[in-house]
Amino acid sequence: MNIILASKSQRRKDLLKMIDIPFKSYASNIDESIISSKYPKPIDLCRKLAILKAKKISQKFKSDLVIGGDTIVAINNEILGKPKNKFEAHQMLDKLSGQTHLVFTGISIQCIDKKILKTFYEKTKVTFNNLSKRDINYYISNCNPYDKAGGYGIQDMSSIFVDKIDGCFYNVVGLPISKFYKELKKLDIIKFM
Amino acid sequence: MNIILASKSQRRKDLLKMIDIPFKSYASNIDESIISSKYPKPIDLCRKLAILKAKKISQKFKSDLVIGGDTIVAINNEILGKPKNKFEAHQMLDKLSGQTHLVFTGISIQCIDKKILKTFYEKTKVTFNNLSKRDINYYISNCNPYDKAGGYGIQDMSSIFVDKIDGCFYNVVGLPISKFYKELKKLDIIKFM
Repeated sequence: MNIILASKSQRRKDLLKMIDIPFKSYASNIDESIISSKYPKPIDLCRKLAILKAKKISQKFKSDLVIGGDTIVAINNEILGKPKNKFEAHQMLDKLSGQTHLVFTGISIQCIDKKILKTFYEKTKVTFNNLSKRDINYYISNCNPYDKAGGYGIQDMSSIFVDKIDGCFYNVVGLPISKFYKELKKLDIIKFM
Repeated sequence: MNIILASKSQRRKDLLKMIDIPFKSYASNIDESIISSKYPKPIDLCRKLAILKAKKISQKFKSDLVIGGDTIVAINNEILGKPKNKFEAHQMLDKLSGQTHLVFTGISIQCIDKKILKTFYEKTKVTFNNLSKRDINYYISNCNPYDKAGGYGIQDMSSIFVDKIDGCFYNVVGLPISKFYKELKKLDIIKFM
C-alpha cells in the first residue's frame, strides 16, 4: 500500500520525510472558500477540509492510503485564513501581536479498498510577543506570508514573534507528527517502530 | 561588529540562518566534564558553560560579538548529558519515556571591546509519549543520539516521541530564538527589525 499526501505543501512533505515515511504527493485543489463559509467552527472546518482533500485523491487511487490535512489559525473565535495581500497580512499579524491564538490541524487518513477512514485533529496554543509595525513590515517584505494561515510560518523568521507554545509544535507547522504516527500505528500501517 | 557563534553545532547554525543573522563560527572546545561536576543545578551549569564558551572565543576576537550556548536536559533533578554509547542512550530515553522533562539553554553574548556581557537562559517543558523498547532501539539504530543532550533531537525522527511542549520550541533545538532576538534588540545590536 503506497502512501499519498493529498497536498503539495512543502512543509507537510518535509515533515513526512523527517519521520522516514515514503510517499507520493498530489494536489487536491479543493475550493476551500466555499467550504469555509459553511463551517464557522475551526475544529469542524479543519476536519471537513482534511476529509475532502483526502477523499478527492482517494477516488483516483483506491488501493493507496491517502492523507489529507488542513491547518487553521483562530483567535477570539475568528478564523484567520491566508492573507490575500499586504494589507490583510498586516491586519492578521496585528491581531496576533501580544495575544494567544489557537492552531488546529485536521488530518484524514483514507483508503477506499481497505475501508479505512480515520479523521482527527490536534490543537496547539501559540503566544506571540508584542510586535511593532516595523517587525510586521519587515516580515511581510522579506518572508512570504501569503501561503500561510494567519500570515506567518513558525518554521521561518517569524519564530522570533513566538513567545511560547503549549502543545505540539509540528501541528503549527502543518502536521501533528506525534498524533499522526500514533494513528498509523493503531491502524497497523506502520510496523517498523 | 561581526557576530561569532562559539559553537560548531549545525543546529545552532541553522537557527541563526533562519533568522537572517550573518555570522562566523568557531568551536570553543571547552572541556564540559570538568565544569559539569561543579554545577549540579541545570540553570547554573548551562549559564556557566555558555559564559566559558563565549569567553574563550572572545579573547581571540575582542571587537566581535561572540555568542556561547549550552543546552541541558534534566529530569527529576538529574542532568542528562550526551550518551556515550548505545546502553546510555537506551537508559536515557527509557527515563524520558512517558514523563515530562525540562530543557534549559544558557546563552552568553559577549564583546570585550564594547564591554558587553549578557547571560540568560530559557526553560521549556517537554512531555514524552510512552516509548516501547522497539521505538527506542529503532531510534538509536537509525538516528544519531550521541551528540545530543538527553539522547534525542526534537528536530529529527524523535519528534514522534514528543506528546507536547510548553515553552519555546527552538530552545529545545539549542537556541531560544525569540528571547535571543529580544536581547540583541535591547543591546541595540539588531536594528533592522
